[in-house]
Amino acid sequence: MASPIDFYFDFSSPYAYFASTQIEALATECNRTVHWRPILLGPIFKVSGSGPLTNLPMKGNYARRDFARTAQLFGIPYNQPQPFPIHTINAARATLFLQQQGDDKATPFIQRLFKAYFAEGKNISELDTVLELAGQMGIDPDKLAAGIAQENIKELLKTEVNNAIDRGVFGTPFMIIDDEPFWGFDRFDHIRKWLKRQAS
Amino acid sequence: MASPIDFYFDFSSPYAYFASTQIEALATECNRTVHWRPILLGPIFKVSGSGPLTNLPMKGNYARRDFARTAQLFGIPYNQPQPFPIHTINAARATLFLQQQGDDKATPFIQRLFKAYFAEGKNISELDTVLELAGQMGIDPDKLAAGIAQENIKELLKTEVNNAIDRGVFGTPFMIIDDEPFWGFDRFDHIRKWLKRQAS
Repeated sequence: MASPIDFYFDFSSPYAYFASTQIEALATECNRTVHWRPILLGPIFKVSGSGPLTNLPMKGNYARRDFARTAQLFGIPYNQPQPFPIHTINAARATLFLQQQGDDKATPFIQRLFKAYFAEGKNISELDTVLELAGQMGIDPDKLAAGIAQENIKELLKTEVNNAIDRGVFGTPFMIIDDEPFWGFDRFDHIRKWLKRQAS
Repeated sequence: MASPIDFYFDFSSPYAYFASTQIEALATECNRTVHWRPILLGPIFKVSGSGPLTNLPMKGNYARRDFARTAQLFGIPYNQPQPFPIHTINAARATLFLQQQGDDKATPFIQRLFKAYFAEGKNISELDTVLELAGQMGIDPDKLAAGIAQENIKELLKTEVNNAIDRGVFGTPFMIIDDEPFWGFDRFDHIRKWLKRQAS
């Protein structure tokens, strides 16, 4: 099988949420797997000189409208969360810990966190919320809390963020396939076209 | 027939060029016409605090790659122009003048200018180039030069830019359909889906 799709995401990114609902189907369609890679946009924006979409003059209003409309057009449950954006360091570390443990609930847990924030109004920046959602899925909350606090997990997240910056990741969702970079939920169709060309 | 699609573009925007090759087909498909509205991104970027994509850290490299790849995937002739970006005030004024005259070559001339810049390496920031291309299409270059220099045309372009800012246009291509805003060539599919929902 060909190399996995590197799927970079910040849990606070609406377009990453939309992509998270469809990336596995896209990968299957292309005979690939998905490497789910949580990162933090905060440190990346410091390098790129950008900021959260909704804070940008003019773009902010449009973005809010586009979030809701995109969700509607693609049939994805969505309620503009408050607060927005949020810190996602707990959620990202939790994900990395579960992946490191080889826990097969890691991916469903990512999808659960996204949905909790973007469809159910749960503030996943809070550690308690992350642990509660984990518990509901049969993931041991105490073990997860200990994992989130581990130094090696904290370091791993930093490494992942730096690695993403080195690879040119400046926003999410960001997909890298065989070194080819694609930014945005609206590049899914480009990925399909591109893979078809590669195959022919 | 329903109201036209307002199609805002800057002649220096690659994604506006891509959109310019397909907007008439999209409009026909949706039983609409196109109101081609040249604007200048320079004054808009002053309001939005943004700048040309290729000048932005990290995003610039990606953008250049995405321009070429998008053109390839959609079968649109493209050669990354140098210089880039350029001043498009002559081209924009020329277009407005032809439209004001009711010249039915106005739209083909817009498409000709886009192609000259993005596929043929012609620098359409130069007045001589604009006039030469006009002449080749049977548009009187002397009349056009006089039109470009008219005070009312200069004012019209300013009004159009301010009007675009008032309507929230912060980049191009920007399509407004019945007051619904869509930004980017990658929103063409969203427009299709959105219009289908409106009709049902």
